[in-house]
Amino acid sequence: MSMLVGNCLVAQSGGPTSVINASACGVIQEAFKTGEINQVYGALNGIAGVLNEDLFSFNEEAPEEIELLKVTPASALGSCRYKLKSIEQSEGDFKRIIEVFKAHNIRYFFYIGGNDSMDTAHKVSKYAQSVGYDLKSIGVPKTIDNDLPITDHTPGFGSTAKFIATSMKEVGLDARVYDYKTVTICELMGRNAGWITASSALAKTHEDDAPHFIYLPEIPFSFEQFDKDIRYALDKYNYAVVAVSEGIKDAEGKYISEMCSTVQMKDAFGHVQLGGVSTVLESYVSQNICKKVRAVNYSTIQRCAAHCASLTDNEEAYLCGQMAVRYAIEGHTGKMVGLFRDNTSEYKCSTQLIDLDDVANKEKPIPREWINEDGNFVEQQVIDYMRPLIMGEVKIRMENGIPRYCKLSKKVINKSVEPWDAK
Amino acid sequence: MSMLVGNCLVAQSGGPTSVINASACGVIQEAFKTGEINQVYGALNGIAGVLNEDLFSFNEEAPEEIELLKVTPASALGSCRYKLKSIEQSEGDFKRIIEVFKAHNIRYFFYIGGNDSMDTAHKVSKYAQSVGYDLKSIGVPKTIDNDLPITDHTPGFGSTAKFIATSMKEVGLDARVYDYKTVTICELMGRNAGWITASSALAKTHEDDAPHFIYLPEIPFSFEQFDKDIRYALDKYNYAVVAVSEGIKDAEGKYISEMCSTVQMKDAFGHVQLGGVSTVLESYVSQNICKKVRAVNYSTIQRCAAHCASLTDNEEAYLCGQMAVRYAIEGHTGKMVGLFRDNTSEYKCSTQLIDLDDVANKEKPIPREWINEDGNFVEQQVIDYMRPLIMGEVKIRMENGIPRYCKLSKKVINKSVEPWDAK
Repeated sequence: MSMLVGNCLVAQSGGPTSVINASACGVIQEAFKTGEINQVYGALNGIAGVLNEDLFSFNEEAPEEIELLKVTPASALGSCRYKLKSIEQSEGDFKRIIEVFKAHNIRYFFYIGGNDSMDTAHKVSKYAQSVGYDLKSIGVPKTIDNDLPITDHTPGFGSTAKFIATSMKEVGLDARVYDYKTVTICELMGRNAGWITASSALAKTHEDDAPHFIYLPEIPFSFEQFDKDIRYALDKYNYAVVAVSEGIKDAEGKYISEMCSTVQMKDAFGHVQLGGVSTVLESYVSQNICKKVRAVNYSTIQRCAAHCASLTDNEEAYLCGQMAVRYAIEGHTGKMVGLFRDNTSEYKCSTQLIDLDDVANKEKPIPREWINEDGNFVEQQVIDYMRPLIMGEVKIRMENGIPRYCKLSKKVINKSVEPWDAK
Repeated sequence: MSMLVGNCLVAQSGGPTSVINASACGVIQEAFKTGEINQVYGALNGIAGVLNEDLFSFNEEAPEEIELLKVTPASALGSCRYKLKSIEQSEGDFKRIIEVFKAHNIRYFFYIGGNDSMDTAHKVSKYAQSVGYDLKSIGVPKTIDNDLPITDHTPGFGSTAKFIATSMKEVGLDARVYDYKTVTICELMGRNAGWITASSALAKTHEDDAPHFIYLPEIPFSFEQFDKDIRYALDKYNYAVVAVSEGIKDAEGKYISEMCSTVQMKDAFGHVQLGGVSTVLESYVSQNICKKVRAVNYSTIQRCAAHCASLTDNEEAYLCGQMAVRYAIEGHTGKMVGLFRDNTSEYKCSTQLIDLDDVANKEKPIPREWINEDGNFVEQQVIDYMRPLIMGEVKIRMENGIPRYCKLSKKVINKSVEPWDAK
């Protein structure tokens, strides 16, 4: 048990989710409880905020707003896409981080993020050890993509899956009201892993329900198969709704979305960047199969729909933050909090530490045997795996008919070190 | 008081909403209660189902499923876009409708829909009177567009507004997490009236909240103003989120969305229909202002998000269906049920009949004085008018983590008349 009394820092990185703030809330509220930690700092915009010494204190934020963090979507502390290079390549960054940590006696560092962020938490831990600075650095997983290895799943995914399943059920009902044939192509996030797109299968209760087919980045996309599938659904159900990952590629590994990249617009308006894979498929259907076709791109709507968050996901996200603090106090560093599913009939999940070495910069695709032979739908294993993750609803505080989300003041504290001069 | 004992028919038309089925449920449950009505029929796909004699009976549906109709989005009876011409131009259609009504002793006709549907209910009422067939035909308003005249507002609008306000709050939080400047362009429905797009203003609590600017079809769109607005928001808030109606036009009345209609794609893939106005504006921003720009098109997601429906809207939709039956039993015909707001400090609404003559084929835009002088945001009147319409949440029955919506069997009854031969 480390008896180090110091301050802690929590920061967020990468794309937002509906529950990344629930994890931050878990860190903050647990840190206040420990008695081992004096100040609970947040960094503005992840590791960039550390480098710039843009820190604020949760001791100065209203406890009511901190409590609201638990249900507030997107990264309330601010995020960044700054990727630390190897320690050899940019030791300056690491020196600077330790300089800022020292200046504020930060002895616990909690970094909430995906792949890249785990890499950052890992390198900071290693560097601190190498220079003899006593620091406990713990990664808290977050990503709607659910592509982190080892952990059973990742906080953020369950809420996106619940919203997708809910909205796809609704869009599916909407798509079938007319007496003529219609095609609806729903584009979902996921460059390399199809977890989000696969979650649309949770919307299906009856055989004729949407989605009828699902196209994942794990399987090479073929226009012949797609053509056959759409015609089959139109023939059988009079409407076709398909879910497609933004990252699908053809057999040569070329992104389908890139088939329309940049084109000249009329009226000498210049060039336009087209909308991605759903636009390409919409165009294909319109020219070859059916004029009544619509592309629905869930864009950022899908990653921040906290009004439809999963209670299970929300509670697990909080737990990961909370446990990160307990593990750090116990003396662990260079680890990520992982979720492990008990081998029981009723769903139950607990946390364990995972070596950051084993997760940083690795990805977890959907296993091939969880996808059907034709590669155009998912097997029951996907449903069995995902269903528990979308269970339960989060109680949202409503004000004037809309959710009342948290608003932090984020007053940056006085700087103690020289301004950062990034080279 | 009409003492006519007969059957009734309910049908739905036009685009779906989150509460069009609540109105159907109001009709059906009230019709069962009256003691004046034997069979409560539904027509598959609106007036097309009447012409084809595709009728089913709600007496044969499970009461539990009928109850679930109250919260189920999209048109559960099926919809159509069939538009009746004038009685002179297509008397055949009207003769056929009365033939089908006679065959099933249908004496009450409830048509739930928007502008075109009110026109249909109107013409059917007039034609029945002209041929001496005793029929009570009542229109029940529905449209997310909120563009029907006279009625204070239209069922369907409040739920779309609540979802838009909720999701825009979330997308707005998502759009501001990074330390670099980003632009987000949210495209909302509305060809000629900007009510839906204006409802995004309900998302704004603090000055720096999204949306920063709103572009409506009521105001000619100018790229100069848009350019100025985006730069202002980026400068002041470091991010810009704007809401834009699909139907905005330039000063010459040309749709902005048509600036990109059909273009040649690379790889000889053929032609592609671009995504509409948000794609055009995204392209403009990317070329002229900021590379980090994203188009978010709410597409059909916005009109069927019953999981985020307004309780006020849901109850009023039900009330309109219920009152349609009471008015018909009282002997009224050729009327639409309208909603009238009491002139009290607390919001209260009740129904009155409106002559279908006064609503059919007319549209209600946002008054100019409810839009700011620059034409790029709405005034407080819009907020005061809309806020009560999004209040309250509908309790949804959840099953396996997603909403359990109604599933009707819709078993078509035996046909009594010859097949319809549309000429």
